[in-house]
Amino acid sequence: MKKAIIDPWGTVLIEDYQRAIKEFGISPFDKKILKKLPNPNRLMRRLVVFGHQDLGRIADAIKNKSDFAILTGIMPSAEKLHLGNRMVVEMVQYFQEQGGEAYVLVADLEALATRDISLEEAERRAMNFHIPAYVALGLDPKKTHFYFQSKNKIVRDLAYEFSTKLTLNEFRAIYGNLDAGKIMSVLTQIADILYPQIKKPRPVVVPVGLDQSPHMRACRDVVRRYKKYNFILPSATYHKFTPSLDGNTKMSKSKPNSYISIPEDPEIAGKKVLNAVTGGRKTIEEQKRLGGEPEKCMIFEIYKQHLIENDKELDEIYRRCKSGELLCGEDKARACKLMKKFIEDFNKKFKKARSNVDKLNIISHF
Amino acid sequence: MKKAIIDPWGTVLIEDYQRAIKEFGISPFDKKILKKLPNPNRLMRRLVVFGHQDLGRIADAIKNKSDFAILTGIMPSAEKLHLGNRMVVEMVQYFQEQGGEAYVLVADLEALATRDISLEEAERRAMNFHIPAYVALGLDPKKTHFYFQSKNKIVRDLAYEFSTKLTLNEFRAIYGNLDAGKIMSVLTQIADILYPQIKKPRPVVVPVGLDQSPHMRACRDVVRRYKKYNFILPSATYHKFTPSLDGNTKMSKSKPNSYISIPEDPEIAGKKVLNAVTGGRKTIEEQKRLGGEPEKCMIFEIYKQHLIENDKELDEIYRRCKSGELLCGEDKARACKLMKKFIEDFNKKFKKARSNVDKLNIISHF
Repeated sequence: MKKAIIDPWGTVLIEDYQRAIKEFGISPFDKKILKKLPNPNRLMRRLVVFGHQDLGRIADAIKNKSDFAILTGIMPSAEKLHLGNRMVVEMVQYFQEQGGEAYVLVADLEALATRDISLEEAERRAMNFHIPAYVALGLDPKKTHFYFQSKNKIVRDLAYEFSTKLTLNEFRAIYGNLDAGKIMSVLTQIADILYPQIKKPRPVVVPVGLDQSPHMRACRDVVRRYKKYNFILPSATYHKFTPSLDGNTKMSKSKPNSYISIPEDPEIAGKKVLNAVTGGRKTIEEQKRLGGEPEKCMIFEIYKQHLIENDKELDEIYRRCKSGELLCGEDKARACKLMKKFIEDFNKKFKKARSNVDKLNIISHF
Repeated sequence: MKKAIIDPWGTVLIEDYQRAIKEFGISPFDKKILKKLPNPNRLMRRLVVFGHQDLGRIADAIKNKSDFAILTGIMPSAEKLHLGNRMVVEMVQYFQEQGGEAYVLVADLEALATRDISLEEAERRAMNFHIPAYVALGLDPKKTHFYFQSKNKIVRDLAYEFSTKLTLNEFRAIYGNLDAGKIMSVLTQIADILYPQIKKPRPVVVPVGLDQSPHMRACRDVVRRYKKYNFILPSATYHKFTPSLDGNTKMSKSKPNSYISIPEDPEIAGKKVLNAVTGGRKTIEEQKRLGGEPEKCMIFEIYKQHLIENDKELDEIYRRCKSGELLCGEDKARACKLMKKFIEDFNKKFKKARSNVDKLNIISHF
């Protein structure tokens, strides 16, 4: 049963993750590293965090109570967030609670270079939506340094300094199709990742989804070959994608019914959950006889990733489903209720965070 | 005789210039455009300025006393300047005297991205050397706005905004070999060229040597396809290279005796001139019989480009050389004297400009 919780879902994605571990220099997030990290959160305990880079360095810093930092970025072009963003925030929160200094950057230069969103518009969106949403998802605004890329002269200068440290062929090997906007964005992101080390080298952890691994790769390449600042190789955690409610491997923005947006109308979020693909059998009789297949169930995956905090409770659901005791109707009703509650909670917290946005610790002098 | 003064030297370079006119969309700087420009300076009168882009727009602005700007850049990596830089300054000075608002940027981001020179070092070099040297060469410091690329947030933001307006293939077509540092530098330069138009569109002229034409091409491509700011296509003047004293087409830094540095020890500058390749015949007898060949004479070219302001005086030298009346010894002695005087004058002015560098009009708020 524990085994199931370790990796109860998906067959296609697992291959992606294994490939990532094999090809991109990502280490598996296993019990060994898990043991070194105090009070692991839900995502870590259930290995939704599936990989990492140099996380031992962060574990050591936590153990020795020595200085380390956490960094994540907000892309202010998206009109909504999704459950995947929540995982990033929870990982930041976790490391913050273990003593790390958290930085959240607004990637306004990237939005300008790759999406043609003006810096003013990016700032408006970030202040009205993305930053309060991150706070509503659990970020401690008092302990977090926010900054806008465009206002961080150190980051901007570093991007130029790093520009000769990777060849265009290396960019292409990491990113595939390239244009000048992407190149400038990547260099700026590399600078963001290293910015927490600019006063003195220290471990930095960047919690990301697998789609962000190229940036880590590019950044770590720069650190390896450019010794001037004695940067420490940045660490990363990689968490899985939140799957599509229709059973596909990844949420798709083109199918809004396949994923839960943040924010979302609680009723609509509930309905989406009710329509999710489950691991149920064709008939109730069959389900009772063979048991359900929680490994294939989107509801179970969303429990695991998001809605059920208590491991024993999750195990119990797994057991009851497997045994045929729990039918999809009952299960979906609970999921619907939990999802509505999650969304309602978010909406409340978001409202409050938005009204306090002017009290945030936004760095403006560099 | 006039014809000779119009283009008395070089056969190889002339091809380069003609090719530029043919291939790079550069118009010949001819009598027609010359006539439209009041009080043309030495370089214009003698067509050392050999090409232009949209200079009619600047001529109109001068005529109508309407607003226009001039822009040039200082690359703070070079340890010395040379006579070619003086031509840029004289062109800026000319347009400044005709009512243009002059901007001189220090390309510290380019020095960082392409030469690994830190911003601090670039600033130190620019303040101690390049800026006072430009003033010593004739720039009116009271009328000129200086800025450092790295401190100009508008320029930096525009570079990101322009980054998607040219494809990498277009970059490659214009610049040949590319790397990310060059791409960022080019985008920053495009932003520099358009910066004087950011408050309102107006004509801007950029006096450059032929080697800078790719930047103009890239910038004008961006303006043509990106209409948001209603930028006016920037204008340019192109002047010839200062030839190598040994008769080669272009000064070469690897052969310090082949060119006059700025600054330079006056005695050494004088000696270099004495060793220059002339258009003299093999023997005095031959010279008297056939006359000299000022078209091939580096001394005459330096007179024309730099040392002799008065056209009649230059014509008279040309006539006396052609007729065999003027021998190379006499001519070189004069050139040596004039060059020494030029260098001594520069050194004095440079000293004064350096002691006044803190009074410069350096833009620091954007």
